[in-house]
Amino acid sequence: MGAMGEAFTQLLIPVAALVGIGFALLQWLLVSKVKVSADSDLNNGYSDRLIEEEEEGIDHEDVAAKCAEIQNAISVGATSFLFTEYRYLTIFMGVFGAIIFLFLGSVKGFSTKSEPCTYNTGSLCKPALANALFSTIAFLLGATTSVLSGFLGMKIATYANARTTLEARKGVGKAFIVAFRSGAVMGFLLAASGLLVLYVSIHLFSLYYGDDWEGLYESITGYGLGGSSMALFGRVGGGIYTKAADVGADLVGKVERNIPEDDPRNPAVIADNVGDNVGDIAGMGSDLFGSYAESSCAALFVASISSFGISHDYTAMSYPLIISSVGIVVCLGTTLFATDFVEIKNVSEIEPSLKRQLVISTVLMTAGIAIVSFFALPSEFTLFNFGSTKTVKNWHLFFCVSIGLWAGLVIGYTTEYYTSNAYSPVQDVADSCRTGAATNVIFGLALGYKSVIIPIFAIAIAIYVSFSMAAMYGIAVAALGMLSTIATGLAIDAYGPISDNAGGIAEMAGMSHKIRQRTDALDAAGNTTAAIGKGFAIGSAALVSLALFGAFVSRAGIETVDVLTPKVFIGLIVGAMLPYWFSAMTMKSVGSAALKMVEEVRRQFNTIPGLMEGRAKPDYATCVKISTDASLREMIPPGALVMLTPLIAGTLFGVETLAGVLAGSLVSGVQVAISASNTGGAWDNAKKYIEAGASEHARSLGPKGSDPHKAAVIGDTIGDPLKDTSGPSLNILIKLMAVESLVFAPFFATHGGLLFKLL
Amino acid sequence: MGAMGEAFTQLLIPVAALVGIGFALLQWLLVSKVKVSADSDLNNGYSDRLIEEEEEGIDHEDVAAKCAEIQNAISVGATSFLFTEYRYLTIFMGVFGAIIFLFLGSVKGFSTKSEPCTYNTGSLCKPALANALFSTIAFLLGATTSVLSGFLGMKIATYANARTTLEARKGVGKAFIVAFRSGAVMGFLLAASGLLVLYVSIHLFSLYYGDDWEGLYESITGYGLGGSSMALFGRVGGGIYTKAADVGADLVGKVERNIPEDDPRNPAVIADNVGDNVGDIAGMGSDLFGSYAESSCAALFVASISSFGISHDYTAMSYPLIISSVGIVVCLGTTLFATDFVEIKNVSEIEPSLKRQLVISTVLMTAGIAIVSFFALPSEFTLFNFGSTKTVKNWHLFFCVSIGLWAGLVIGYTTEYYTSNAYSPVQDVADSCRTGAATNVIFGLALGYKSVIIPIFAIAIAIYVSFSMAAMYGIAVAALGMLSTIATGLAIDAYGPISDNAGGIAEMAGMSHKIRQRTDALDAAGNTTAAIGKGFAIGSAALVSLALFGAFVSRAGIETVDVLTPKVFIGLIVGAMLPYWFSAMTMKSVGSAALKMVEEVRRQFNTIPGLMEGRAKPDYATCVKISTDASLREMIPPGALVMLTPLIAGTLFGVETLAGVLAGSLVSGVQVAISASNTGGAWDNAKKYIEAGASEHARSLGPKGSDPHKAAVIGDTIGDPLKDTSGPSLNILIKLMAVESLVFAPFFATHGGLLFKLL
Repeated sequence: MGAMGEAFTQLLIPVAALVGIGFALLQWLLVSKVKVSADSDLNNGYSDRLIEEEEEGIDHEDVAAKCAEIQNAISVGATSFLFTEYRYLTIFMGVFGAIIFLFLGSVKGFSTKSEPCTYNTGSLCKPALANALFSTIAFLLGATTSVLSGFLGMKIATYANARTTLEARKGVGKAFIVAFRSGAVMGFLLAASGLLVLYVSIHLFSLYYGDDWEGLYESITGYGLGGSSMALFGRVGGGIYTKAADVGADLVGKVERNIPEDDPRNPAVIADNVGDNVGDIAGMGSDLFGSYAESSCAALFVASISSFGISHDYTAMSYPLIISSVGIVVCLGTTLFATDFVEIKNVSEIEPSLKRQLVISTVLMTAGIAIVSFFALPSEFTLFNFGSTKTVKNWHLFFCVSIGLWAGLVIGYTTEYYTSNAYSPVQDVADSCRTGAATNVIFGLALGYKSVIIPIFAIAIAIYVSFSMAAMYGIAVAALGMLSTIATGLAIDAYGPISDNAGGIAEMAGMSHKIRQRTDALDAAGNTTAAIGKGFAIGSAALVSLALFGAFVSRAGIETVDVLTPKVFIGLIVGAMLPYWFSAMTMKSVGSAALKMVEEVRRQFNTIPGLMEGRAKPDYATCVKISTDASLREMIPPGALVMLTPLIAGTLFGVETLAGVLAGSLVSGVQVAISASNTGGAWDNAKKYIEAGASEHARSLGPKGSDPHKAAVIGDTIGDPLKDTSGPSLNILIKLMAVESLVFAPFFATHGGLLFKLL
Repeated sequence: MGAMGEAFTQLLIPVAALVGIGFALLQWLLVSKVKVSADSDLNNGYSDRLIEEEEEGIDHEDVAAKCAEIQNAISVGATSFLFTEYRYLTIFMGVFGAIIFLFLGSVKGFSTKSEPCTYNTGSLCKPALANALFSTIAFLLGATTSVLSGFLGMKIATYANARTTLEARKGVGKAFIVAFRSGAVMGFLLAASGLLVLYVSIHLFSLYYGDDWEGLYESITGYGLGGSSMALFGRVGGGIYTKAADVGADLVGKVERNIPEDDPRNPAVIADNVGDNVGDIAGMGSDLFGSYAESSCAALFVASISSFGISHDYTAMSYPLIISSVGIVVCLGTTLFATDFVEIKNVSEIEPSLKRQLVISTVLMTAGIAIVSFFALPSEFTLFNFGSTKTVKNWHLFFCVSIGLWAGLVIGYTTEYYTSNAYSPVQDVADSCRTGAATNVIFGLALGYKSVIIPIFAIAIAIYVSFSMAAMYGIAVAALGMLSTIATGLAIDAYGPISDNAGGIAEMAGMSHKIRQRTDALDAAGNTTAAIGKGFAIGSAALVSLALFGAFVSRAGIETVDVLTPKVFIGLIVGAMLPYWFSAMTMKSVGSAALKMVEEVRRQFNTIPGLMEGRAKPDYATCVKISTDASLREMIPPGALVMLTPLIAGTLFGVETLAGVLAGSLVSGVQVAISASNTGGAWDNAKKYIEAGASEHARSLGPKGSDPHKAAVIGDTIGDPLKDTSGPSLNILIKLMAVESLVFAPFFATHGGLLFKLL
């Protein structure tokens, strides 16, 4: 036993979660002080500083009213889309919940008799039917929490976007704080509620399970499955929605009609802004919540069949949850550096400030991990290691969690280097636009491929160290380490789309060029942080899915996954193919939906008199409908591919082939995902680099409308589905297949491999 | 023992090889009957059919003289580049030969004492030093044969291109036959000489080795290493050369100056045409020769440590060589269908005729395999299977070879479907050009990703069946099966660049529009066959490298490659990253070299008076020099990556990690390679589809110079490095790392894993 008592642990976790939620509400309160309305009396208390706007002859009452109107339109659009999407997802949850119950129930023929435990030999565990029931409940809980996370994130983002725009009138620093605070609301709400729901679920489940921790934590894995399966549809559906609108809007607006991005005359502009919120915000929220839930579940499951579980050491067992609790507190401190301790006065300080968040949270968290590891864990204990046991010391786990955390920082910094236009890679890509779109694409693809190298080495080292020190438990806590600062990660990630929307609103509300420049600067930093967020999501997904893979192998009773057996090897090569199949579907979906969008936008420009001149309003609703219909229809095939592959592979080919599929999709998917999101981020920022014209070199490529700029716009458009649809969905693919395999492992182990049995 | 005696086998193999060489010479003789000179008397015996040309006011004497001149320029350029390249490669061969000798010699401390055999227990085998020496000799032999294969292929192609152009005046059928015959010269020469050199080497080596077949066939694996390492540099160097010129020529010529492809005013046009010969022809020749050599070596090595080797059954031992011998005879019959039995009268018959070649050779070969398997093999025998043995029947091997062969056909047909503009995938890509280059690229990438699915399933099934039936030997002979019709595969593959060059010569010689249309039709089919050839190369590379991987594992004495060990897993994920690293290098190289080319071409257009008007000649030599310098300089880093990775991984991390690296790069590289070459092929043919305007739909997108056509040109340019540089080099990456690991296995097993030993 460690020094930390059970009572303290029982208190620490919920208190940390509640502190996190409280902090999120406080931030929300601060954001809400910026009033979005036409009421001139309020004027947000800064009327003296708005002189520049009056000089430009813009009526700020009118502007505020316009902002409120646009914000409302975006919020209504996003809410209505998410409600429609969630209607579909409710059906899916029902059907898939039933599948879980039936498959797992059938393992012991729906018997209600207690079974001898698998790992805690000599004891009696609850019947398989109970596990089936509780897994289903956990699945539904995870799915609901995931949906709520996404929805709340979207609500916050649409609440914050116009406020960021209005604050941009007072300077870039004020706007930055609003955008960042709103990101923090989302980050803390998600991290804290994820922890709280998990904590409460475990306690409720234990009312039934009592001392049968094996069954309890086996069932809890359903929570991770629920979280990730919703995230899949959120990412894919939202990704198709946003990019169909974005690509469609750009192709006609920027390329054909030569009107600026987010121009209110463009019929697809509302759909585009709605898309940022349902795709980047709601999708990303569900995604990272899923990773968090899965890595916790993987760690808890492995712990439950190790000495912590067998000897019922509650505090040590809760180590993963304690890490997350400390993470919330650490991130709280870190956030203050961005919002209170340091003030942004200049555009050039935005990116360093966001980067500082990563460093501060990582350094503080390392200390936190050290404390937790020494107090919560016994100094020596044994962990389950594929049939055998492994003796581990508490400082081993400190290294495991820390290396995950620091690997995350390395991935974050590498991503920043390859996607920020402050460094040579993006500048080289921008430079290649001189010779046209073709060289831009060639250089961009090469950049994406190259950006894979360092993250993969970082992940490999993290895996080697944590695997060697503490087997699969080490990997699971390394993943948790990477995600322990999730609140900060989400804050800087959500900051991106909020700034993007703020820029859109500024343009649509007809605000001055200066305001747009400020929001553009916020947005350029946002592209980089979005790429960093994706880097984290992918890196953690790699570790999480390896941990889940290990848990699956343990639960399915496989002792080795030998590449040199035909069953495993075919799984490996087919698994490595799945990310391509999946990307082909999502890319094609975005392409087709964008073509429809283009036709509609063109039709409106051609048939609505006075639209180009700004005398008539476009029909935004039809464009919203095109994106909605496309995303709901097109999310089904890729979703089915991911959800059905483990079921088919496990049932027909058995656990060995499935293990191969998981390993193959993991090692291949990580590469495709990283290269896709970095390529896309680089193209976007290469375009912004030319547009901003901040250096001699950048000006030689510009201005907007020049040939190099046109080439850069083409690259940006190609990058859209890569970085916001197929890339980020892939990390869900790899971890979702792993967690699904884990949940269904008892079924596959009992009834799987039908085809080989028949042959 | 099978029914076939040793004497018959001893006769069959060299006779088949000599028949192949004889047939190649006969085809050459037939091609040479087309005279390329200004001598009007000859007129190639068809003066009556050249009236149309006279009607158009073109002097055919002048045209023939021009063709001869251009052909000469291309041939001189290609020869000079290859000689320069080979000078570098000779240094590499010397250095790497020394490394092989030193590393392998050090295994037993350069002792000259005989050692007890590893597999043939109880017998005495030759000393490790002898194996080091003979491995080095085999490496040099393989390297030399590979270089010669590439060089001869290039000579034939540059001999044939102008002849194809001249024959195009008489009709598309005549031109087709010349191009195809020339491809056949290369195909048969390569297949036959590869077999002959291997046969002779084995006999010469056995003068020393006598009954020690273990050592003999261990040394022979150096032959495969030599073949593939030259192929790597050939592919990468040639690929960078050709695409730097191609992209550079297109970017200025087609996009900026609006002059047609291959226009003689374009300063990069000669470099572009030279590139087709050094990249597609010489590179592909070396590549497929390498695959052939490696799969033979892998099969022979596994056989030598199985019952064939232990019991010294010469005929059964030579089964892989007999399969290749029969393949030559089968391909000979198949070729006659294209050149003699069926006549091409119409453009639309070209593609079906080429496809027919694949089907005929596959069907005939299946019968051939059946005969060989029943007569050459004992009805039952045992094979080495990772420490244990496996009992196999002769019909098992029939299935193994056949499934490889038929999987090749499936891959060929799938590739054709995704890259030929006769089907909807390419037509959809062409259609997406309506909305610009961005959608074209999105659709093209999606097409490439999707095209991976069926080939991977075909490879997986082939692996499963052959692996289950005959372990690693089964995989090796499946690879041989896929390559057994290599003569036909190479013929239809080499046909492509020859037609491409023929078109270039027609344009440069100022021949009529009709002639260019014919050569374009030949070329469009050539793009598809080139993609099919790449599909074969990749599919066979996947099987070959798995077989080599198995042989490596056997030779290194590893019993399992368990994904669930940290050493293996980090190898797996880093291995899966290597194709991306490699592609990043090659893509960037092409991009940078193309930028230099663009600057030079622009400079010439701007500074040479009268160039645009055709009154002055461009300075072709400078462009040739840019391509040459770039390719020689830029081929070193990717080459080093591939050659050093196994050495570093094996020496520092040991055989388990290296096994992971090989498996990871195999399963990931196959996907990247297939998608890259099919995406590129599809873009090229989407462009040709719009240019040819053969259907209502195609005409609605054209003509040349329209916006959709411009978008299609951008796609084509992006596809160039994907399909001709990075994609096809990747299959060498995966098999070369495997064969290198196999050759160095004894060293790694003895001295490897230094880093882990230190920790």
